[in-house]
Amino acid sequence: MTLGYNGKILRVDLSTNTIAEETPAELVYRTYMGGSALSLYFLLKEQKAGVDPLGPENKLVFMSSVISGAPLPGLTRYTAASRSPLTGAFGEAEAGGFWGPELKMAGIDGIIVEGRSPKPVYLWIKDGKGEIRDAAQLWGKETGEVERLIREELGDVRIRVAQCGPAGEKLVRYACVVNELKHANGRTGMGAVMGSKNLRAIAVRGTKRLPLANPEKVREIGKEVVKRIKQSPLAQNLRKFGTPFFVMPLHNSGILPTRNFQVGQFEGAEAISGETMTDTILQKSEGCYACAVQCKRSVKVDGKYTARPEYGGPEYETVASLGSFCSIDNLAAIAQGNEMCNRWGLDTISTGVCIAFAMECTERGILTSKETDGIDLRFGNVDGMLEMIRKIAFREGFGNILADGVRRAAEKIGKGSENYAHHIKGQELPMHDPRGKQGLTLAYATSPTGADHIEAPHDTSFLTDGPMLKAVNPAGVLEPMSAQEMGPRKIRQFVHTQQIWNFFNSLGVCNFAAAPYTAFPLVMLAEAVEAVTGWDTSLFELMELGERTITMGRMFNMREGLSSEDDNLPDRLYEPLEEGTPREKQFTREDFNKALQLYYQAMGWDPQTGVPTGGRLSYLGLDWLIDKE
Amino acid sequence: MTLGYNGKILRVDLSTNTIAEETPAELVYRTYMGGSALSLYFLLKEQKAGVDPLGPENKLVFMSSVISGAPLPGLTRYTAASRSPLTGAFGEAEAGGFWGPELKMAGIDGIIVEGRSPKPVYLWIKDGKGEIRDAAQLWGKETGEVERLIREELGDVRIRVAQCGPAGEKLVRYACVVNELKHANGRTGMGAVMGSKNLRAIAVRGTKRLPLANPEKVREIGKEVVKRIKQSPLAQNLRKFGTPFFVMPLHNSGILPTRNFQVGQFEGAEAISGETMTDTILQKSEGCYACAVQCKRSVKVDGKYTARPEYGGPEYETVASLGSFCSIDNLAAIAQGNEMCNRWGLDTISTGVCIAFAMECTERGILTSKETDGIDLRFGNVDGMLEMIRKIAFREGFGNILADGVRRAAEKIGKGSENYAHHIKGQELPMHDPRGKQGLTLAYATSPTGADHIEAPHDTSFLTDGPMLKAVNPAGVLEPMSAQEMGPRKIRQFVHTQQIWNFFNSLGVCNFAAAPYTAFPLVMLAEAVEAVTGWDTSLFELMELGERTITMGRMFNMREGLSSEDDNLPDRLYEPLEEGTPREKQFTREDFNKALQLYYQAMGWDPQTGVPTGGRLSYLGLDWLIDKE
Repeated sequence: MTLGYNGKILRVDLSTNTIAEETPAELVYRTYMGGSALSLYFLLKEQKAGVDPLGPENKLVFMSSVISGAPLPGLTRYTAASRSPLTGAFGEAEAGGFWGPELKMAGIDGIIVEGRSPKPVYLWIKDGKGEIRDAAQLWGKETGEVERLIREELGDVRIRVAQCGPAGEKLVRYACVVNELKHANGRTGMGAVMGSKNLRAIAVRGTKRLPLANPEKVREIGKEVVKRIKQSPLAQNLRKFGTPFFVMPLHNSGILPTRNFQVGQFEGAEAISGETMTDTILQKSEGCYACAVQCKRSVKVDGKYTARPEYGGPEYETVASLGSFCSIDNLAAIAQGNEMCNRWGLDTISTGVCIAFAMECTERGILTSKETDGIDLRFGNVDGMLEMIRKIAFREGFGNILADGVRRAAEKIGKGSENYAHHIKGQELPMHDPRGKQGLTLAYATSPTGADHIEAPHDTSFLTDGPMLKAVNPAGVLEPMSAQEMGPRKIRQFVHTQQIWNFFNSLGVCNFAAAPYTAFPLVMLAEAVEAVTGWDTSLFELMELGERTITMGRMFNMREGLSSEDDNLPDRLYEPLEEGTPREKQFTREDFNKALQLYYQAMGWDPQTGVPTGGRLSYLGLDWLIDKE
Repeated sequence: MTLGYNGKILRVDLSTNTIAEETPAELVYRTYMGGSALSLYFLLKEQKAGVDPLGPENKLVFMSSVISGAPLPGLTRYTAASRSPLTGAFGEAEAGGFWGPELKMAGIDGIIVEGRSPKPVYLWIKDGKGEIRDAAQLWGKETGEVERLIREELGDVRIRVAQCGPAGEKLVRYACVVNELKHANGRTGMGAVMGSKNLRAIAVRGTKRLPLANPEKVREIGKEVVKRIKQSPLAQNLRKFGTPFFVMPLHNSGILPTRNFQVGQFEGAEAISGETMTDTILQKSEGCYACAVQCKRSVKVDGKYTARPEYGGPEYETVASLGSFCSIDNLAAIAQGNEMCNRWGLDTISTGVCIAFAMECTERGILTSKETDGIDLRFGNVDGMLEMIRKIAFREGFGNILADGVRRAAEKIGKGSENYAHHIKGQELPMHDPRGKQGLTLAYATSPTGADHIEAPHDTSFLTDGPMLKAVNPAGVLEPMSAQEMGPRKIRQFVHTQQIWNFFNSLGVCNFAAAPYTAFPLVMLAEAVEAVTGWDTSLFELMELGERTITMGRMFNMREGLSSEDDNLPDRLYEPLEEGTPREKQFTREDFNKALQLYYQAMGWDPQTGVPTGGRLSYLGLDWLIDKE
């Protein structure tokens, strides 16, 4: 069993101020590989059900992967995972950039943070050694300041800092972890968990070279992937326009989330599009470690609104959530909103959805400016949106209500406001509307983290011609089908894609470098794992890792008391879009319930309860979870 | 959908004396690939349930595969499939040699035989064209004579002939199809189906070169596989001793089937071993098309007993079924028995099991020489065994009773004889005892064809050290486990291996060239499919093909009225072996029932009924079978 992989895990107990080093068996790495699955391995093995997500018993895991840090495009992402304070279910989010690879070059695969420090601290990791340091001087400060102070204190400008921001300190339930001021582990409130532990930041510096089993093969794969990136029209669009490139195709398809999911087309779409961003505020395209796609934005705004390049620039999700979703067509203001979220550590998606929720409540007379601190929070109120971001981050006034997410906010507000609170399992919906690409219904409803566009594949047929979509499915060539199909053939496509997305989350693969955009073909990803680790593996093993990841998240949730009842969609998604995709292309409750049944069966879960069966757990090597059902 | 693969299928209607040519869509080839799965595709699509297996409505499919015929070791096998006259369930058997590749070189992927000819005929296929020819002069003749006459009539000694033999003409329910006198589609009575159609032979000659998408890659793979075959100790043992090499390790492990599964060790093991065969009667080692293993035997015996080299030589299964199973240690007589089976077209396994059944009934006084045509059919009666082969082949006297298989024979004989009739779903058990390698319990019980060692993987840990077994599992590195384990970890190993064995049966892969012996690694098999067809495929797609194959067989059987009740084992396997594996290493009914439950769940089947769910069918692209549940 000693083929050679021996990544180190740091176990940091903040209650006792101690750090221990562990080397899991190679079989553990081989089976879970990293990210989502390896985090779940530790959470399921070590943590009992029902702990307070913001209490010291909740563990917070940062996990890279066995291939992360290899000099190949698209392998930079790491996971932050815990029980979520937003959902009470599995909490997890991935982030790109350089922090994950830096951790690997420091000789560390992952960090398990336990307990709670009696006072603010930060963690400093240098080449395999960890140190818990005082953070009194950092507490309350915005992220840019904290990063600068840590680098000064430790005397190294190349230190990479991941941190929770003031919003995390304030336990905003969707506070994110942000690294290098612009790459976020956005969803499910991992920043709040960090804040609850009085852990403000994790600073990392690594100077080791990653050992590669077959360096020549790694180089060969790298060359091939870079070549494919150059040849991929979509990769080139991402380079030019970033993820906001998606604004116009979604608008044109009638599924651009607008005004809290009331309509699917936004009259201001062009003004907030990737094309406009490139023409106006873009400073430069940036990328993550070793990536040739360069889809990240760095923008500069200097006028009534401001945005500094060091905070990056808004992704598509942010352009939509702070823009069309709030009916705001002012790109400069969106850029400032993005900076504010990064500066204070807020998930831009949940932030935008919370504000749009309040806006619709205002439009419908459920809320007035009396409740919302004197702000007339109607759709399109740019300054109201920005002010509300600040109030949420610091839990001020009405911001304190929105800081708990739409589910809890609606409970407090009452008066039917829950009809406008769009979440699944308590997590706010991301900026992709299932009415028009129906695979998303299952993606959102079954993701263990609640509505989540990274857990959950979505039909890209609106972007690609048929063959492109078909070519990447590892099940072979699939029959062409429309984005609106929800029958057995869509189940086939959906489950396979969900497996892919989930092994991506365990390997730290970015879906803009790999499938469905084919720059990094799936079989080549398996070859990359082999070239880096020396393991004799295959795409089959990775696809099984994907299913294992989905299943472990499911088991975590079952243990926390969730059930098939929680695999639902907000009512609004059953209502027709007022503008956008025509009604006849949308789905009914019956369509969804049928599809969910087929999905459970396809996964080998109990068709009634949605609980993974002992036999399927055994197949996946998860028989150690059978007794815990 | 037109990537290029366009293999032809000949549809032969013997009732109307017509031949039509069809080219299935490339998507059909991509999804089913050949052999078992593609045969099932046609049977499930075209044939209604409940037809008489020996009537004109039962279709008989001969199916090669998309890679068969490529100049690579281990890819020669083709499938004969139909509803089985022995079991009433899915009937299917693979055979190696040169006939399958010859069919491909004649430009044909498969043949669907329908109807029944009013008079004896044979089918002649030359370079894509088929012809139904008169076989009056061939009827009743032994296989060697038929092959000679056809070659003479058509004037080409290089014609390859597959035929059913006189036993098929006589509708012996386990009559085989034999090609080139020595390679048999042995199990489930495909020769009887052929005979029932008055189709005596299919003669094939092809001079086309197989088109290869990437000839250089094919050559490269070929070189690598040949190198690995030379380095594999097991492949070299197979070359030296053929499959009878297995006699001694099985005897030494206490699981050599002996005297109708009463004991697990045979005092005459050495006398019938592969080593003895090589030292005494072996003429030469032979191989199938393009294979470097050369595990086939050609033996010569000239004395009291005789055997001619053109009929090959006994495989392990034959050495055991006509040898230890009947308590016969005379290798010359076994070789003659093997020749008789090949000469008349009998499956050696079912033949031996039927005779051993009669022998145990005789020992126990249920049968006397009065019933058995004056032969005192006790264990060890060499000449009785040989005479009984002849009687079975020609349905003479007591042979007429045994010609229907042990299930029907026991029904006729009564008097508790069913306790000694060892079959599953009506098919006689092959020569591997699950008491000592427990994975076989599920393998036998769940194979759609009934007890079958080619449908069904068996634990090879008795042959290999742990790592060898582990290395080939595409799920990754598995924890070491004993052959006796039957818990969740064994389920994990078993289902994965069953997937492998089943995609082998659909691709025509030989398990002596490929896994578990690693000469042809599984990932390289996927590369071979890609190099031959040009399809962008992976091991994942092949593993899914394996599951699809298992599931289609299951659906065929469900349609024919079988149920989970038929996933059983003969009572004897729950009794302890009198000699051999110690009792504490054997399994109980409870062990088996638990394992079967886990297996159903692992497959995503209904845990009570064992019926594949609509969702899992959808996942596999088999939603067209949902309504037929």
